[in-house]
Amino acid sequence: MELYEAVSPLDFRYYGSDPDFMKRLLPYVSEAGYVTYQAKVEAALVRTLANYDVCSSAIADEVEQAVDLVTAEEVYEEQARIRHNIRSLVNVIRRKISPEARPYVHLFATSADILDTATALRFKALTENVIVPDLIALEQQLIGLAREHAETVQIGRTHGQHAEPTTFGYALALYVSRLGTRIEKIHEAGQNLRGQFSGAVGAFNGLRLIHEHPEQIERDFLALLGLKPSDTHTSTQCVEPEFISDLAYQITAAYTVLANFADDMRHLYRTEIAEVGRKYNPQLVGSSTMPHKVNPEAYENIKSLWKAFVPRMQTVFMDSILEHQRDLTNSASSRFLTELFTAFDYSIYRLRRALEEMDVKADNMRRNLALSAEDTIAEPIYLLMAYYGFPDAYDHTRKLIGQVHQTGKSLTTLLWEDETFRPFLEKLTEPQREALRDPTHYIGASVRRTHATCDEWEKRISNYNGS
Amino acid sequence: MELYEAVSPLDFRYYGSDPDFMKRLLPYVSEAGYVTYQAKVEAALVRTLANYDVCSSAIADEVEQAVDLVTAEEVYEEQARIRHNIRSLVNVIRRKISPEARPYVHLFATSADILDTATALRFKALTENVIVPDLIALEQQLIGLAREHAETVQIGRTHGQHAEPTTFGYALALYVSRLGTRIEKIHEAGQNLRGQFSGAVGAFNGLRLIHEHPEQIERDFLALLGLKPSDTHTSTQCVEPEFISDLAYQITAAYTVLANFADDMRHLYRTEIAEVGRKYNPQLVGSSTMPHKVNPEAYENIKSLWKAFVPRMQTVFMDSILEHQRDLTNSASSRFLTELFTAFDYSIYRLRRALEEMDVKADNMRRNLALSAEDTIAEPIYLLMAYYGFPDAYDHTRKLIGQVHQTGKSLTTLLWEDETFRPFLEKLTEPQREALRDPTHYIGASVRRTHATCDEWEKRISNYNGS
Amino acid sequence: MELYEAVSPLDFRYYGSDPDFMKRLLPYVSEAGYVTYQAKVEAALVRTLANYDVCSSAIADEVEQAVDLVTAEEVYEEQARIRHNIRSLVNVIRRKISPEARPYVHLFATSADILDTATALRFKALTENVIVPDLIALEQQLIGLAREHAETVQIGRTHGQHAEPTTFGYALALYVSRLGTRIEKIHEAGQNLRGQFSGAVGAFNGLRLIHEHPEQIERDFLALLGLKPSDTHTSTQCVEPEFISDLAYQITAAYTVLANFADDMRHLYRTEIAEVGRKYNPQLVGSSTMPHKVNPEAYENIKSLWKAFVPRMQTVFMDSILEHQRDLTNSASSRFLTELFTAFDYSIYRLRRALEEMDVKADNMRRNLALSAEDTIAEPIYLLMAYYGFPDAYDHTRKLIGQVHQTGKSLTTLLWEDETFRPFLEKLTEPQREALRDPTHYIGASVRRTHATCDEWEKRISNYNGS
Amino acid sequence: MELYEAVSPLDFRYYGSDPDFMKRLLPYVSEAGYVTYQAKVEAALVRTLANYDVCSSAIADEVEQAVDLVTAEEVYEEQARIRHNIRSLVNVIRRKISPEARPYVHLFATSADILDTATALRFKALTENVIVPDLIALEQQLIGLAREHAETVQIGRTHGQHAEPTTFGYALALYVSRLGTRIEKIHEAGQNLRGQFSGAVGAFNGLRLIHEHPEQIERDFLALLGLKPSDTHTSTQCVEPEFISDLAYQITAAYTVLANFADDMRHLYRTEIAEVGRKYNPQLVGSSTMPHKVNPEAYENIKSLWKAFVPRMQTVFMDSILEHQRDLTNSASSRFLTELFTAFDYSIYRLRRALEEMDVKADNMRRNLALSAEDTIAEPIYLLMAYYGFPDAYDHTRKLIGQVHQTGKSLTTLLWEDETFRPFLEKLTEPQREALRDPTHYIGASVRRTHATCDEWEKRISNYNGS
Repeated sequence: MELYEAVSPLDFRYYGSDPDFMKRLLPYVSEAGYVTYQAKVEAALVRTLANYDVCSSAIADEVEQAVDLVTAEEVYEEQARIRHNIRSLVNVIRRKISPEARPYVHLFATSADILDTATALRFKALTENVIVPDLIALEQQLIGLAREHAETVQIGRTHGQHAEPTTFGYALALYVSRLGTRIEKIHEAGQNLRGQFSGAVGAFNGLRLIHEHPEQIERDFLALLGLKPSDTHTSTQCVEPEFISDLAYQITAAYTVLANFADDMRHLYRTEIAEVGRKYNPQLVGSSTMPHKVNPEAYENIKSLWKAFVPRMQTVFMDSILEHQRDLTNSASSRFLTELFTAFDYSIYRLRRALEEMDVKADNMRRNLALSAEDTIAEPIYLLMAYYGFPDAYDHTRKLIGQVHQTGKSLTTLLWEDETFRPFLEKLTEPQREALRDPTHYIGASVRRTHATCDEWEKRISNYNGS
Repeated sequence: MELYEAVSPLDFRYYGSDPDFMKRLLPYVSEAGYVTYQAKVEAALVRTLANYDVCSSAIADEVEQAVDLVTAEEVYEEQARIRHNIRSLVNVIRRKISPEARPYVHLFATSADILDTATALRFKALTENVIVPDLIALEQQLIGLAREHAETVQIGRTHGQHAEPTTFGYALALYVSRLGTRIEKIHEAGQNLRGQFSGAVGAFNGLRLIHEHPEQIERDFLALLGLKPSDTHTSTQCVEPEFISDLAYQITAAYTVLANFADDMRHLYRTEIAEVGRKYNPQLVGSSTMPHKVNPEAYENIKSLWKAFVPRMQTVFMDSILEHQRDLTNSASSRFLTELFTAFDYSIYRLRRALEEMDVKADNMRRNLALSAEDTIAEPIYLLMAYYGFPDAYDHTRKLIGQVHQTGKSLTTLLWEDETFRPFLEKLTEPQREALRDPTHYIGASVRRTHATCDEWEKRISNYNGS
Repeated sequence: MELYEAVSPLDFRYYGSDPDFMKRLLPYVSEAGYVTYQAKVEAALVRTLANYDVCSSAIADEVEQAVDLVTAEEVYEEQARIRHNIRSLVNVIRRKISPEARPYVHLFATSADILDTATALRFKALTENVIVPDLIALEQQLIGLAREHAETVQIGRTHGQHAEPTTFGYALALYVSRLGTRIEKIHEAGQNLRGQFSGAVGAFNGLRLIHEHPEQIERDFLALLGLKPSDTHTSTQCVEPEFISDLAYQITAAYTVLANFADDMRHLYRTEIAEVGRKYNPQLVGSSTMPHKVNPEAYENIKSLWKAFVPRMQTVFMDSILEHQRDLTNSASSRFLTELFTAFDYSIYRLRRALEEMDVKADNMRRNLALSAEDTIAEPIYLLMAYYGFPDAYDHTRKLIGQVHQTGKSLTTLLWEDETFRPFLEKLTEPQREALRDPTHYIGASVRRTHATCDEWEKRISNYNGS
Repeated sequence: MELYEAVSPLDFRYYGSDPDFMKRLLPYVSEAGYVTYQAKVEAALVRTLANYDVCSSAIADEVEQAVDLVTAEEVYEEQARIRHNIRSLVNVIRRKISPEARPYVHLFATSADILDTATALRFKALTENVIVPDLIALEQQLIGLAREHAETVQIGRTHGQHAEPTTFGYALALYVSRLGTRIEKIHEAGQNLRGQFSGAVGAFNGLRLIHEHPEQIERDFLALLGLKPSDTHTSTQCVEPEFISDLAYQITAAYTVLANFADDMRHLYRTEIAEVGRKYNPQLVGSSTMPHKVNPEAYENIKSLWKAFVPRMQTVFMDSILEHQRDLTNSASSRFLTELFTAFDYSIYRLRRALEEMDVKADNMRRNLALSAEDTIAEPIYLLMAYYGFPDAYDHTRKLIGQVHQTGKSLTTLLWEDETFRPFLEKLTEPQREALRDPTHYIGASVRRTHATCDEWEKRISNYNGS
């Protein structure tokens, strides 16, 4: 298939057209990669049988060498003939080995033992080798930016309205925290994926014919691959679906954090706000007819892909329901999970490049803050007056604001002219007066919390080096 | 990209690996096809300008010839350089034409004019040329089967329990009706897709500089392509999203009809029920360890793909919300719509092959019907007794059923022994007695309704020949 | 149940706590209303039997009088005893009538005949009597505002960035068009709801015992209620699900239009933009600690409820799949559809009040437009230069913009100083020069299109008076 | 509001109409309960201020007594006047206390501090006091049934086809495992809910005016309520959304386990299968026209409610995105989360009653198993022949099956007649021969795994006594 003959935008546009990006994910998310993992699982299975003296270890060696030569192409060719995916793989492997070895390939296994175990294996590896490291790199970038702007004062916004001041670094620190928590959860869910070797209905029917404790064989087989079975060795034909569902959820929840960040940036890019932008690059075209525009396209892309992928949890939930020992109504649909993981990693990749080009416009932040300097002090007025015991501080402050509209005077002026407030104003400490004079001094603990949050997450993510 | 390097199961498994299937959809759903449609729209735009004497018709001729040479590859190469998709296309076209012609390529258009119009055009063509014809072929198969089994008596099932008899043909006729209705709706939604030529904010800002009634130019341009604008020529930068949303909904609703059919067949395949199956084919493998099994895999595949695609309507709804004159958070996500259409058409294709192999087991239908023959007559007993004026026919019938459990006698026996029912039983006509004796005579109007439904839909779909 | 003991926010907060709102919807969306409709359907059924001489018309009269006395309370009491909803209703009706009449209540019907027909009836009435009239009232308000602001110039925004000018009226006209289209579609879907009288498996098993053409009885019964059967009298135990699905989709699509409008308003409320607001009302509290804030709370509420209800289409699709002649896995879930309709109507109601309080700040629109007056002319420069035959107008204009960044001069200045453009500038007409001087003259056909759109929809919605 | 005037099926049908069920959930899920929790949080806040000497502890005492008297009715009355929910609560509390105490109510808090903390508190309590205990009771029932049927042989089914034997107890044990895992995850997510006291933009702006380390105040305040802040005291105006999202996901995943169980039971109820049923109860009505039917209505109800509630995760994800320090587009929508929890608990409740009435039909299980006894031995034949070194055991077994179709002989007969298999058959041990003779001996480790799984989960859930 030529690249632009593909129907999936992931294939022709986001993954397939970017060799650097594709190269890292291909071993885990492509069909070729999946077949490789399946072959590896088949080899581990023969090795396990050899360890239990069902066959010789020479046979296990032979199979291990054979599986390295298996290609997706030949498996699919066989499948076109017999219409069964794992039996095709088995046939392909068997053609590459001696007649003595052949009986032991796939022996005692059902297709789902191979497929579900290979899926656990590749998704665990994908999480460990790609997704978590990419998230950590992103987290480090966010930490760097948060520290850099720990003291860059920005108006906080609620309902899109100016509320009270904060710092841009603290706004970023919140994402450091949310994303950090998801890194831990994704790591945990990836490590918690399970395999199986329990046969057609999950009751170890076949293995039990040759061994008193087939569960041990299952455990030993999975240990060869670095996996575990379900806690109590229960399964139907399939591994319990919740292990995959947990990972899909955590990825989706983390994706939602990225989407939230993207939305924040999109709005800070707005012409009237312009607190964040991208350095001017004369080579790029922002619009086919409006040459002056520089759009938040990376952030739009992240939000957009999120919209394409967030509903996929519905499929995951539906796929967690199978009739009796299983039906195959999850077979085609669960194949699409790789797309979720690919899109998510692409959005991390895209976000990392966007952060490199980020232009934080502290001047505009100051300008915007000044727009409502008079309004933002309403809160500290009310709080301090109440704190010093003024009985109806909230209502009295609102009354002053009403006078702003009527008299045209500033709230500051009205405050200091106000007779009833005066005795309470006299109790103010110097820093409290400062906060009433200048909103850039009314930023709470944002600077310290920014650094403390970054410290904490730098420490925690350092645990995942090479995980 | 090699086929098995793809991440999308559509690409490597369902669409990309089946040349017959792929060939028919490629012009509409692939990126190469999309670029071809975009180029065609750019050519129509220059032709329109020529018709309004903005440029010569020789220039329009030149552009028309140039666009035939445009390939997706060169457009994507240019895009890698300047990161803007339509401006890349424009550059590519301009390189193929004379300097005199260049100013008129894309003149007065914004990217969305080209993209949205090309999308309307290709989805309209996809609907007309592929989806509706495939649905009609499926409908005809269903009609054939329904007529063939119009008199094949089958027990009707509600809650999975035997209810009252019907015929298998009538059960199929219901799908003839549901699917037929969707064919009409899909056709209508496909024909109702709209294009535009209204500029960066949809207000005809540019065109209005050179013509008093730019709406006419829009209408004439779209007419060249067989399209229309929105009823009142309104748009933002984008065409109103509901036209696409309506089509996506109708496709999803029709997909749900297929999924329902697939579920029905899956359950009729059950070992204990076995009313439907597939002819034995010794070449196919049903299970990697259980050689005896023949699974309803086509139906499982259809249900499974439905689960993967039904949540996509959520994306469509989210994509129908754009801020002000538009933001680009629908750009990446709306590209995935082609996948919905491809998967849907693949499921039609799969279902058609499954119907060809369908083995309707009328014997087993009779066997199953007989299982509860005694129970199914409870309804006609109650109805006829009530009809002839027995005051508490329902409760009295339930009392008799209670006696079945206690006495071990059949309901038929108890009925004719019953003293209170006797005077009413005497009023029964011969066909009414027949229905009480033999449930295969208690099938209502199912035979006639089957043929009437097939007649009606044969007539209606004949309107779409070549559509 | 006390109001604040309810678990549903609709009940205790949006519907149940607002008597004016509740009163209008209660007959259609409450359980009491549903029972009333079911009772009415039971009466029509006996009337139909009388018309076919199965019973006397005196009996039909008796039943009609009895059903007026049925209350939801007594039906639910009976249901607590026998655990079957329609049989409970039947028992309740039968207790209110003479022994002679009793056999004919519910005769030949299955529960679904009553429930599905009652549902079609109440949703048709809800659409006709509440939803469409409320939408028309909203549409009229939008038309009024659009006309009022047809000439109020506003910068068009794409990607959140200033693009080219338009008018606020034209931005509203787009909603007039989108909403108008949905009104027609909702009306159509409401009118297209269907009923049935086809028995336990939809094959008219019972009725066929007493009449050659039971379909006629079905048609006549439904005609008494102002309904129709499916086009070919097909059904399983249930009416084909797509009729309801179509209505649910249209409501959801229309809800999405409201949500889009709400988002637009939310962003125009932003402190830095402030093009739309709410008149100051000293009685309302915007924040518990920030007395100065006036939030776009109505628009936030609409967007928020949309988020709660848009995923419900997933349930509708899942509910369209029932096994064989039906299973009951749609029974509980489809009851929640009334909530979608209620929330949607509540959002219309909320939006109408918000529009009454809307404060359009034309001054701020002018101020914001001025922010990028120099940038917005880039487009007409490029277009006009290209129109007059300048070969690389787009690139040359981008070059000038590059000079703006370097020289600090305005684009206007650079334009008129530019040697290569000069000969082409001389060809400009006076209105074209005007558009380059003043962006408020570069608004395309927005004024005329606003009025034309309003004219068209005023005409179309006038068809639905009383509908 | 009268019960049947409600629009929500939860209110009038599932929760509101069942006093036993309602009583347990009301304190957590009703609006009255929510207001009570909010009031409790306001009291804890004043207590915290007293502990920091901002006010006297007598004032804190006074407020604590006052909040006990607060009713939802009076708060809603106030809200009708001022349209702000928390400010209404504050006003109501202030009216009940002395003028001296009034300034300290809600001091330094923003509405979200109260609302989000109250939400964490009530959902934590709901999880601890209702949901986890109910799940444990269900788990214990499942354990009891699994042990009881540990040796009840049942055919395992894949694709709806007979596969290999298992036991009904083992099939139940799988649910013991899946549900057990979810109990732990739900418990963990419930315990992990967080509160806050960080002010309007989450930066502790107000508290920082009076204390160097406002984070300590936050921590101490939450400790009074048994809660914690986010790990690094970060928040916007709202608590990080993922804590709630994690709980909603775990509930939805557990709900999916129930839905899967319900589907399994529905299919085992099928007339032809009839392996599970409900004891005959002459009082209940199964169908309004078919008196003989006993439907799996509890299981249909569970599956149906699952369909109504599984899409709600989409809302949760959308609600996790708020602009900047927050917007209020999650305000209405997040109120509906209580409905998810209520429906889930109702389904547990319903399932527990269904399990009490469950009639396991071991006879029918044996009958069904016998249907394909000849087929199920194909697997052990192939496995054992391969195990003993027969080179193409799989293909040779399939050849024998082909002969079954041609010769009409049984597979067992053909097996023992087969010349090439004979030398390998002689190697079989007695238990292996047994498994080939009688499928009830080919059940693997199902009996032992059933008890082992039950042992494990009995132990684990015993940790949650009173949690």
